[in-house]
Amino acid sequence: MMIADPHDPRLDDVRDLNKSDKSGEGLVIAEGHLVVSRLVASRFPVRCIVGFASKLEHYVDIYGDPGCPMYEVSRETLAEVAGFDMHRGLVAAADRSTPLEVAEVIQDAQTVVVLEGVGDHENIGSLFRNAAGMDVDAVLLGAGAADPLYRRSVRVSMGHALRLPFARFDGGFTTWQRSLALLADAGFHLVSLTPDEDAVHLADALEGHAKIALMVGAEGPGLTEHAMRATHVRAQIPMAPGTDSLNVATAAAIAFYERQRSFR
Amino acid sequence: MMIADPHDPRLDDVRDLNKSDKSGEGLVIAEGHLVVSRLVASRFPVRCIVGFASKLEHYVDIYGDPGCPMYEVSRETLAEVAGFDMHRGLVAAADRSTPLEVAEVIQDAQTVVVLEGVGDHENIGSLFRNAAGMDVDAVLLGAGAADPLYRRSVRVSMGHALRLPFARFDGGFTTWQRSLALLADAGFHLVSLTPDEDAVHLADALEGHAKIALMVGAEGPGLTEHAMRATHVRAQIPMAPGTDSLNVATAAAIAFYERQRSFR
Repeated sequence: MMIADPHDPRLDDVRDLNKSDKSGEGLVIAEGHLVVSRLVASRFPVRCIVGFASKLEHYVDIYGDPGCPMYEVSRETLAEVAGFDMHRGLVAAADRSTPLEVAEVIQDAQTVVVLEGVGDHENIGSLFRNAAGMDVDAVLLGAGAADPLYRRSVRVSMGHALRLPFARFDGGFTTWQRSLALLADAGFHLVSLTPDEDAVHLADALEGHAKIALMVGAEGPGLTEHAMRATHVRAQIPMAPGTDSLNVATAAAIAFYERQRSFR
Repeated sequence: MMIADPHDPRLDDVRDLNKSDKSGEGLVIAEGHLVVSRLVASRFPVRCIVGFASKLEHYVDIYGDPGCPMYEVSRETLAEVAGFDMHRGLVAAADRSTPLEVAEVIQDAQTVVVLEGVGDHENIGSLFRNAAGMDVDAVLLGAGAADPLYRRSVRVSMGHALRLPFARFDGGFTTWQRSLALLADAGFHLVSLTPDEDAVHLADALEGHAKIALMVGAEGPGLTEHAMRATHVRAQIPMAPGTDSLNVATAAAIAFYERQRSFR
C-alpha cells in the first residue's frame, strides 16, 4: 500500500529513527533485506515493513509474503519519516515480545556465552554475529551487558540478535554469583576468558566437556575477579608481548572457533 | 612550549583533522597516549606532539622524553586547530617516510598476511591489531587494500599499524599473480581463507609449514578466483548453516590464532 503523507500514523513505528532507538516504545527495528528477513523469521511479531516499491517487490520475490502490512513510500517520504536518507530503502518494526528466561535458553544448549559488562552495542552485535556463525546455542547477559535488540546491535549482528536465543540474568550482585552457580549446577563447565598469562591455554580449557559456558568481560577491565572465581577454569589466548588484549567480540570468536574445533 | 594562538603555523601538522586525513601532506597522525608512544617508538620520524599541559606531563612521566617538539595548548585552542573537541588531549604527527619493500618485510618472516581488496579503514586497523597481538610478522597489501597509515586505521589498530612492518605489492594484475608466485618461491605456503565448504579445515591447512602466507579478501566478495588459484590450499573456518561469513578481521584473527596454536 502506497503512503505519500509522511505524517501518516501508520509510519509511526519507523519515525525519527535518527533521534530514537524505539526501544522505549517496545519496538525492535530491522534494516535491509537480510536483516528484515531474519526479523520476519524470528519470534518477534512484525508490525510492518516500510520501503521503496522496488525494495518491497524484491523482498517478496526472495523471501515471499511476510504476513504483515507492507507500506510503500518514496525515498523522500522515508527520509522525512526516519529523519535521514535511508539508502537501503527497507525497514521493519516488530514488538519486542516477552524476554526469554535463562532456564529456557540453556535447556538444550551445549555451548553458551555469558557476557559481563559488555556495554558497547557494536561489540554486542559482533558477538551475536560470531556466536551464530559458530554454533553457539545461546547468549546470557549479565550485569552491564548492553541490549542486543538495540537498533545498532541488531544491524551489526546482521540480524542474528533476532535469531539466537538470549536471556538476561536478574540484576544484583549476589544474584550474579548465584546465577553462575546455577549454570554450573546445570552441568556447564564455566570457562572465563582472561589475558592473564598464568591462565591455561584456551584449547586445554575447552577440551572434553559436553557443556561449556564461556564467560567474557568488557574490553579493558575484563571479567571481574568475582566472576572469574565463580568459574571452573581461566583460559587465555596467548598474546605477543607488548600488545593489547583482543577486542571482546574477536576474543569470543576465537573461543567459539576453538569450541567447534574440539568436536572435530 | 605553550602556544595560545590557534593560527600558529607550528600547529599546522594537526590542523583541520576533521576535514583532512593529512595523508595528502605526507603525514601520519596518532591520538592518545598509547598510540602516540607507539608512533614515537616507530620508524616514522615524529615532527611534534601537541596536547594539554596535563597530558604532555603525563606522557613524559610514563614514556620519557619523546625527542621532538612538544606544544602545550588549551582545550579550546586544540579544538579550534583540529576542528573538533579532542577529549584525549594528545596528538602527534610524523612523516610517513619511505615505504618498505616486500622483499624487506618477508626476509625473516615466518607468518605473513596478504590482503586483497580490503578497502575499509576500520577492518585494516583491526587486522593490524589482531596480527600484532598474535605474532604475525608482516602485512602485505595487494590490490585494493586500504592505507594502514590513514588516521582511522592507525586509531583502530591501537598504533600497531605503526609498528608491524607492511609493504604494498605493485599494482597491475599480472604483477599481483607474479607477486604471489614470488612469495611461494620465497618458501611460503600460501593459504587462502574462503567460506567455501569444500575447502579444507583451517587447522589442517596450517599444520606443518615453517612459513605461511595467509590470504584474506574483502568482506562480501572475498578473494578473487585468480588469487585463490595462486595459493597452495584453500582453507575454511566452518560456519553454521544459514549464517554469514565472518568479518574479515575476525576471520583473520582466528587464522592467526590457529597458526600460533600449531606451534604448541
